[in-house]
Amino acid sequence: MKSAIALAMFACACTPTGYTAATPNWVNDTASVQPKFPTPIADRYRDVAAKIIATARADRGAYAKLEVLTDTIGARLAGSPALDKAIAWAAQAMKDDGLEVRTEKVMVPHWVRGEADGAITAPIARHVGVLALGGSVSTPKGGITAPVVVVHDWKELDAKAEQVKGAIVVYNVAMPAYSEETGSGYGQTVQYRGGGASQAAKRGAVAALVRSVTAKSLHTLHTGAMRYDKDQPKIPTASITIEDAELLDRLASKGTVTMRLRIETQDMPEAESANVIGEIKGSEKPDEVVVISGHIDSWDVGQGAHDDGAGIVTMMQAGKLLKQLGLKPRRTIRIVLFTNEENGLRGGKGYAAAHQAELGKTVFALESDFGGFAPRGFGIGHKDKDALGRMQTRMTDIASLLRGFGASRITPNGHGGADIEPMAPAGVPQVGLDVDGHAYFDYHHTDADTLDKVKPQDISDMVAAVAVMAYVVADMPDRVDSP
Amino acid sequence: MKSAIALAMFACACTPTGYTAATPNWVNDTASVQPKFPTPIADRYRDVAAKIIATARADRGAYAKLEVLTDTIGARLAGSPALDKAIAWAAQAMKDDGLEVRTEKVMVPHWVRGEADGAITAPIARHVGVLALGGSVSTPKGGITAPVVVVHDWKELDAKAEQVKGAIVVYNVAMPAYSEETGSGYGQTVQYRGGGASQAAKRGAVAALVRSVTAKSLHTLHTGAMRYDKDQPKIPTASITIEDAELLDRLASKGTVTMRLRIETQDMPEAESANVIGEIKGSEKPDEVVVISGHIDSWDVGQGAHDDGAGIVTMMQAGKLLKQLGLKPRRTIRIVLFTNEENGLRGGKGYAAAHQAELGKTVFALESDFGGFAPRGFGIGHKDKDALGRMQTRMTDIASLLRGFGASRITPNGHGGADIEPMAPAGVPQVGLDVDGHAYFDYHHTDADTLDKVKPQDISDMVAAVAVMAYVVADMPDRVDSP
Repeated sequence: MKSAIALAMFACACTPTGYTAATPNWVNDTASVQPKFPTPIADRYRDVAAKIIATARADRGAYAKLEVLTDTIGARLAGSPALDKAIAWAAQAMKDDGLEVRTEKVMVPHWVRGEADGAITAPIARHVGVLALGGSVSTPKGGITAPVVVVHDWKELDAKAEQVKGAIVVYNVAMPAYSEETGSGYGQTVQYRGGGASQAAKRGAVAALVRSVTAKSLHTLHTGAMRYDKDQPKIPTASITIEDAELLDRLASKGTVTMRLRIETQDMPEAESANVIGEIKGSEKPDEVVVISGHIDSWDVGQGAHDDGAGIVTMMQAGKLLKQLGLKPRRTIRIVLFTNEENGLRGGKGYAAAHQAELGKTVFALESDFGGFAPRGFGIGHKDKDALGRMQTRMTDIASLLRGFGASRITPNGHGGADIEPMAPAGVPQVGLDVDGHAYFDYHHTDADTLDKVKPQDISDMVAAVAVMAYVVADMPDRVDSP
Repeated sequence: MKSAIALAMFACACTPTGYTAATPNWVNDTASVQPKFPTPIADRYRDVAAKIIATARADRGAYAKLEVLTDTIGARLAGSPALDKAIAWAAQAMKDDGLEVRTEKVMVPHWVRGEADGAITAPIARHVGVLALGGSVSTPKGGITAPVVVVHDWKELDAKAEQVKGAIVVYNVAMPAYSEETGSGYGQTVQYRGGGASQAAKRGAVAALVRSVTAKSLHTLHTGAMRYDKDQPKIPTASITIEDAELLDRLASKGTVTMRLRIETQDMPEAESANVIGEIKGSEKPDEVVVISGHIDSWDVGQGAHDDGAGIVTMMQAGKLLKQLGLKPRRTIRIVLFTNEENGLRGGKGYAAAHQAELGKTVFALESDFGGFAPRGFGIGHKDKDALGRMQTRMTDIASLLRGFGASRITPNGHGGADIEPMAPAGVPQVGLDVDGHAYFDYHHTDADTLDKVKPQDISDMVAAVAVMAYVVADMPDRVDSP
């Protein structure tokens, strides 16, 4: 199962890795029990935190920014004019908010979706909606028609290796319903989206279709990234709905099923893009940096409202409000809007490479990439186990300031976010904003990832949580992970 | 509001009229409290009911039938070859089950959906999915481009009468979330789907778009019936998603919005169709008839699994199991699978007309058209108020037999089902199978109305509830509404 795990890790890079681990055991702590630990950091920042929280929670600026981003610009896949527009808009908006702004060039993949369509041709005639996975090659012009082989895991793919030759493999792997105890199960199911095409191609398949990675469907197609193994033929691959995956499964259990499949895509030359950076310079230690971030690109469906419009407007507005309140933290607060998280992670990798020399002085990197929902706290990671413990103690202390609106949980789940992960090997503390994401995977990577799914108060609360955490970490005497 | 109410009534004819009233105040009564009333009828039938219930709840034949109907035949709009196929299949299946079977010819409308597409053209360029409402005319070839006027009720349409001239009217009327207290709110919102086009045309609009009538959306398009007033120009009309209705609303609140809209449909000559009838002849009073029914047609999207595949397989299997158990009720049990409920109600109207002479001896008509969910009891109606009271007493008595699986609630909501309503003026007692329909309007009239949304046990339980009720009503000495 090693290869499957590796594939899962890749696939997860395009979405919240470890999300499953981040969400279990949530308890709503708005009841505000007294902390069972001393809170020396919180005590020192109680007044300023109260001011930040009150300002942020009453403010609707982040939602207003999200409305511009989603309604005016919309979906913004790497290489698209819309992403260029989003980058220009975000840079200008942060300038207008009084931040020091620059962009840092990154080259990104430029994959373009064309038309796609499918149909069962035997034993019945039935339309099947298909949505190419990001990076998929095209079918031959006019499409392909082939028998269908349905599998439910890698083992069954192996067992059916003979049938798979010349066939369209359908991975009908069900994502479990979200539960507070076990999370979403995204990590277990997304591996078939990431690696299904090459695993099928290895056994002679002509195409691979993946049940959309979601637990809920109203005939909903979810796209997402996949990766071709360099040693295998590249075969076209797309998602189908839960409904159609189940239909194909039922039909295939009774006899031979054939499908017609047409996918048109274009792999264009790499395009220039950029990470957008806005800063509040530190008053005493400007070379020590607190990164707060999200990713500005999205898939080319829906509006990218939850994934990850919500994340970037949260960071932008946190910066604006701290500036507006006249707060001058000792360290620099740097808002980074990463480009190309979805289908390349070039923004995150590019940032880590370009800033390698200063990563030792990057005291903290925080990302929000689980959607725009009520904040619950933070998931944290660190390459050093002892440092993680110290980080947990201090962050639990600071996060107690957020108990009033239920955002004080600290979970040492080892994870921050895909874009900040390339900084982890250098020892940069990893922090992910943790939210009530039970509905996240219903919308994520679909046409339904739209502004109407976002509650304004949730985004304001996210700003409050991030602004307090970033400010205190930037201003407190010690590093959050220091001995 | 009289016209609006009339429109709503028409629109509801294509779907569960009065559904709102049928579902409130549901309490799960599986806890099986002792009845507070005497149960002379139930007492007499307790043993046979137990046998029917045990057999039906353990049987999966109804689900197996539903699988054939949905997967092999699929969607089956009036006039389509698929509906013909469904009719032939159902007749044969009931024959195979040992019932006396015939079909009764009915002419039906034959409307055919072509392609449809939409786009916002200013102030932004954005695709808008559209799904023509049943009966809509086409746009001119090449489509129309016009400014958008968004309204939220009839009053606002009136207030914006000047702007509406030459415009595309968008009815952005939100259906409330389902609640046990207030039901679905379908009745209040579907009136805009039914009458929106003609009301807009009356004020000079060139097209009308209706927010899909659902409370939940994953960018989901819901079709359904509409009706043109004979005095108004026929303008093209379609549904759009909640997401796009909200987007258009936000954009229109800030300035001028224009859209391009293309709808292709065909209005064909009326087609021959049929109601399918299967009978168990009464042993003592064969001319007294208990009708149990659903509708065999569906919309042309999804598979028509909940609407109303679940209803017809329930009735078919109830008939089969009663026959199989060798039960010979005094009166005739007649299974009627009505054609063309969705866009014409010709099956229901045709049946009432053809059987007018015997309606006085139709002691009971029951329909299931709220989807395939756990049964909760029955909604009842009668044109005579006193008769309704007597019916309520007797049905409460009989339904106490169903308490063990939570199907014993009797609600005098005045309603049975759209297809049996044409029999109401003749005094035929109206009965609707009441189910836990909280998710019904999520799937109804969409591509998501598919077999995977139906739980086999729910359908088995529906069979149990209907078989007991039908058998007892057909066998008991008195009519269910007699003095």
